[in-house]
Amino acid sequence: MTGLFDAVFSRGRAAEAVSGRAWLDALLRFEGALAEAAADVGALDPEAARAVAAAIEGGGFDLGAAADSAAAIGNPVAGVVDALRERVPARHRHAVHFGATSQDAMDTAMMLVAKEAIRRLHHDYRRCISAAGSFKDRYPDLEMNGRTLLQQAEPVSFGGAAETWAVILANARKSKAHLEYRLSYSGPGGVGATRDPLAGDRYRIAARLGELLGLDAAWAWIHTDRTPVVQIGSVAAAMAGACGKVAVDVILLSQNEIGEVSEGRPGGSTSMPHKRNPVAATCARACAARTPGLVATLFAAMPQELQRSPGLWHSEWETLSDLLRLTGSAAAWLRESLQGLQVHPDVMERNLREAEG
Amino acid sequence: MTGLFDAVFSRGRAAEAVSGRAWLDALLRFEGALAEAAADVGALDPEAARAVAAAIEGGGFDLGAAADSAAAIGNPVAGVVDALRERVPARHRHAVHFGATSQDAMDTAMMLVAKEAIRRLHHDYRRCISAAGSFKDRYPDLEMNGRTLLQQAEPVSFGGAAETWAVILANARKSKAHLEYRLSYSGPGGVGATRDPLAGDRYRIAARLGELLGLDAAWAWIHTDRTPVVQIGSVAAAMAGACGKVAVDVILLSQNEIGEVSEGRPGGSTSMPHKRNPVAATCARACAARTPGLVATLFAAMPQELQRSPGLWHSEWETLSDLLRLTGSAAAWLRESLQGLQVHPDVMERNLREAEG
Amino acid sequence: MTGLFDAVFSRGRAAEAVSGRAWLDALLRFEGALAEAAADVGALDPEAARAVAAAIEGGGFDLGAAADSAAAIGNPVAGVVDALRERVPARHRHAVHFGATSQDAMDTAMMLVAKEAIRRLHHDYRRCISAAGSFKDRYPDLEMNGRTLLQQAEPVSFGGAAETWAVILANARKSKAHLEYRLSYSGPGGVGATRDPLAGDRYRIAARLGELLGLDAAWAWIHTDRTPVVQIGSVAAAMAGACGKVAVDVILLSQNEIGEVSEGRPGGSTSMPHKRNPVAATCARACAARTPGLVATLFAAMPQELQRSPGLWHSEWETLSDLLRLTGSAAAWLRESLQGLQVHPDVMERNLREAEG
Amino acid sequence: MTGLFDAVFSRGRAAEAVSGRAWLDALLRFEGALAEAAADVGALDPEAARAVAAAIEGGGFDLGAAADSAAAIGNPVAGVVDALRERVPARHRHAVHFGATSQDAMDTAMMLVAKEAIRRLHHDYRRCISAAGSFKDRYPDLEMNGRTLLQQAEPVSFGGAAETWAVILANARKSKAHLEYRLSYSGPGGVGATRDPLAGDRYRIAARLGELLGLDAAWAWIHTDRTPVVQIGSVAAAMAGACGKVAVDVILLSQNEIGEVSEGRPGGSTSMPHKRNPVAATCARACAARTPGLVATLFAAMPQELQRSPGLWHSEWETLSDLLRLTGSAAAWLRESLQGLQVHPDVMERNLREAEG
Repeated sequence: MTGLFDAVFSRGRAAEAVSGRAWLDALLRFEGALAEAAADVGALDPEAARAVAAAIEGGGFDLGAAADSAAAIGNPVAGVVDALRERVPARHRHAVHFGATSQDAMDTAMMLVAKEAIRRLHHDYRRCISAAGSFKDRYPDLEMNGRTLLQQAEPVSFGGAAETWAVILANARKSKAHLEYRLSYSGPGGVGATRDPLAGDRYRIAARLGELLGLDAAWAWIHTDRTPVVQIGSVAAAMAGACGKVAVDVILLSQNEIGEVSEGRPGGSTSMPHKRNPVAATCARACAARTPGLVATLFAAMPQELQRSPGLWHSEWETLSDLLRLTGSAAAWLRESLQGLQVHPDVMERNLREAEG
Repeated sequence: MTGLFDAVFSRGRAAEAVSGRAWLDALLRFEGALAEAAADVGALDPEAARAVAAAIEGGGFDLGAAADSAAAIGNPVAGVVDALRERVPARHRHAVHFGATSQDAMDTAMMLVAKEAIRRLHHDYRRCISAAGSFKDRYPDLEMNGRTLLQQAEPVSFGGAAETWAVILANARKSKAHLEYRLSYSGPGGVGATRDPLAGDRYRIAARLGELLGLDAAWAWIHTDRTPVVQIGSVAAAMAGACGKVAVDVILLSQNEIGEVSEGRPGGSTSMPHKRNPVAATCARACAARTPGLVATLFAAMPQELQRSPGLWHSEWETLSDLLRLTGSAAAWLRESLQGLQVHPDVMERNLREAEG
Repeated sequence: MTGLFDAVFSRGRAAEAVSGRAWLDALLRFEGALAEAAADVGALDPEAARAVAAAIEGGGFDLGAAADSAAAIGNPVAGVVDALRERVPARHRHAVHFGATSQDAMDTAMMLVAKEAIRRLHHDYRRCISAAGSFKDRYPDLEMNGRTLLQQAEPVSFGGAAETWAVILANARKSKAHLEYRLSYSGPGGVGATRDPLAGDRYRIAARLGELLGLDAAWAWIHTDRTPVVQIGSVAAAMAGACGKVAVDVILLSQNEIGEVSEGRPGGSTSMPHKRNPVAATCARACAARTPGLVATLFAAMPQELQRSPGLWHSEWETLSDLLRLTGSAAAWLRESLQGLQVHPDVMERNLREAEG
Repeated sequence: MTGLFDAVFSRGRAAEAVSGRAWLDALLRFEGALAEAAADVGALDPEAARAVAAAIEGGGFDLGAAADSAAAIGNPVAGVVDALRERVPARHRHAVHFGATSQDAMDTAMMLVAKEAIRRLHHDYRRCISAAGSFKDRYPDLEMNGRTLLQQAEPVSFGGAAETWAVILANARKSKAHLEYRLSYSGPGGVGATRDPLAGDRYRIAARLGELLGLDAAWAWIHTDRTPVVQIGSVAAAMAGACGKVAVDVILLSQNEIGEVSEGRPGGSTSMPHKRNPVAATCARACAARTPGLVATLFAAMPQELQRSPGLWHSEWETLSDLLRLTGSAAAWLRESLQGLQVHPDVMERNLREAEG
């Protein structure tokens, strides 16, 4: 199903990384790596692990069928696992979903999806920082009115103001360095399960599985620790908020009466095609405006009951996906806005003189 | 693009009513009715209006192309209007988008989409009320423990508790009766435009257009009045919250240690297939848990600047769609939970005796 | 405890209506009216009711002690009831809190507090509408640039733009007419309590109590129906959002480069005392910006468990108070901004000519 | 003004750290350290700095007057600075608020307030972790039912489940180590001010001022970089969410029908004094439930316009204060709940046997 607003809100390359297909691929990647890890530590016959790998590589997993299967237990893992088992010779089927429960697959997939989405959106985000920084180099001494509470204040340099943008964007992503993308491999009992048939093997498998997937295995057995989720959400929302700040500045400086910058590809309207609306900054702001409500939903989902929550856990999947998609779109739009931004030194000078007059 | 979680979060019939296709159809419906209304009041040649109608009926509007077009001005209206104009003989093209601006089309389409989504989700919602009410009739005298702060309190009747559900659901939808689904036909200048070429015709066209679309034409020329949007959002979120309340009660009463009700089609897990999880109530709760953040986004979008906002307006489209979709899914899941709910009078009686002991 | 920001965020007369003292008075008012209502319907000795009334009129209830008492059971009702009982002769003490439970007192007090706060904030809010409307009368033909996406668009009249403000403000408060301020008189068992010693008397007392307090008694026995709370919250947030919209417009039109309006009492800064910042509009916007998160908290509190929620119920008290206080402050600030607003027709004319040039 | 709910929501020692008095003290601390720093780097006569210090030490600053002064410019800094100047001999008055603007004082005070509040709330928070961890040591082998989706699942050990609590609490505070409490010393022009009379002195003063106040001076001149604010907010909300999770578990395990733990000081109700409600966990949950909406408000305030925002900046002050107060209260309540928690091994064993039966 195509959305009518994808060009606005699913812009940039993060959108694809949070799509249904990307989630399905991540679930399969978990299942494949799990069999491999179990074989690597000697808990599973290597041949069985290879059979699982072959089945996944064989492809042909139907997204629609996987999606439909979610109605039965409230998530699509059972459907995906069944489809995978069908593709594996009967004698190796025990190797599929080995020692795992559905939340293991879902939580791990969420981390894989988020990690890739963050990587992709950072591609555009870095270019926003570069574009902002380049103005610093190009206009170090260009004076313009500073504006506090939208009233003219002490003069600043445009280079300095643009450097502010770069710094704000850079600071907002700093916590990205501390993110933990966490493996989940708890099994049905979670931490402290007293009758886990895997016993100590679970820890060895988890350590190897973390290596294979590039995820942190330190706390892989606590389903109801949602810190990794809210941390990813907080970083994304901060980056989106920083994009929103720069976008708002572009919109304000583009006002006809100020006119100190203008976008390279402004847009008209259906009734006033001559207008030069700052479309890219407008769309970046729109994306950013949607993120605070989503990150609140993630925080509200933290108090997950006992060993697994009936509903709060589920509420994270599309919410985090949307948050990452919108942050990516904000960055993509802002990059477009800044890379094409036209600076009008003469207008800055004139406005400054008028303010001093 | 299919989502992997559609069976959980796009359940019920409201989801389709907020799809990209539904939005596109609503935009076309606006354009068709606009030409018809303009002709009806004598502002446009009836033949031109018929040409527009014929072009729309001819179909073949490409959703993907319309979506892509949104990149140019930040919304898909220009692309849709262009596609429509191409299908209309040159001499009648002036009749397309007659006197309108893109926000007119978008805001009107949003109202058409919301109205249909509310109508559809109410289909399931009413059945939730009926199902809850039916327990009142079936178990008027069945006593059970009341529980306040999740501690046993004074006994209640199950019929009375179920009546509570029905009343809560019914009260939460009451404001639905006061919703204004509002036409937008402001033109580029909005209210108080001093040079509107349509002049007084605008009001006559709006009145007729409102009739044709079943929308309220009283304040059709104020783009930045977002009251209708937050009112729809508030009603949807209240209905979702009411579904969440009943769902939580079902989950709590289904705990093994209480066991006073159980769902008709409980779900297992991938590792513990014997479990009887209250899947429908769990999914209803998950849907409801996502609505407060979305309604906050709508309220945050109210302070729309001057005659049209750069970004806050845009932030409503997918947000309201998601909110309606989730409310519809909550109702669909709750209906399933309640219609299949099994009541265990013997357990209620036993628990009550134990509490008294 | 005085807050350092009361002049900004506790402005207007609603702030006092949601204070600790106001809540305490509302709790006492409930208790007094309850005894009176019970006597009126013959369930209680009139002399006992008069003793309760006399004790309340005697005053001297200590706010700090009542507040401290809340630590014991999680709300202050037990402390207030105990303090009241101490003031009543022993033989009449049974008349205090007659047939009520703590949530009855709290929920009823919340409604009394909210009703008075809404009444008070509407005092300022109506004056915002009047002030906006007065510009319509004074400047019906004054032309100015319309601005969409903050770019100059078709001209509008200032009178028309100001009328927009009046209409937006008026529409946002419309749902106020449908608010239900609901009595709570459920007793410990809530609806469907099978062993309520009051039996049918409860309904008669509730009906009379509703009359005495000016509250709706129709659903007085369902503690977990939170529709009245989210409805009040939604109306307040919509009114605050409307204030925010007008405030943003004032801020934008006050920019030096536009300069079409200015506040009557602008403020400087500690370092630039000559500045003419639109302080009142700025503060109105700040108040409004805090409301979407609060109304989300109220919606998130809807799924209250079984007969009384452990925690979600509690989360409403300060949240609704803050929401009403901030809405009142937004209205008070906006009133100040609009009533003192200076309009600069010559600047509007000059800007318009430049746009046309 | 005392609130009636302070015992519930202003519990623990963080509440005092965010009070009006604490904010006023922080503003004065900024002003005193600023004069000292300026003297230290040779930008100001040491005698003048000592005069400022003496005036602050002399005390007698009236909180109410400072609060009232905020009406003039939208924040209390001018009033505080004026009151301070009155206490300083005329010839040294230039040393007060030296080179600063009001946002410097406010932003720095916010960081001082937040830092102390976090320090205080962590006092209780650490004890929550210890208390949870102690159960691990005391009950390493005590088996109980695990519960997923609130249905009995694989057995766990109570020690393991309690360890989960400790780990969740510990992980949620991890980002605390990366918080930047940032100095603000931008002056009226902000970064890139071209005509700052302080010129290079600003950087030297900032570096020294940062040392004196224990704040990070690296980006002291960018008012509209709000990353430090949302980071503090995110950490607080995560800690509150973790408290909420443990509190919910305590509430659920305390249900009469489960009865595996109970609070040491449960509370009754006004109508059912015999009840043993888990009051502390209930209040902890209530505090936590209010935090997601507040952190959303902070994220929504990120897009602050140009050199200083008209309103979004202001919206942070009480919001962050409330968030820290509520997080502190959640920790204080949870500490009380866990430190007094009674564990019932016999009931755990019985429930487990019944589940296996």
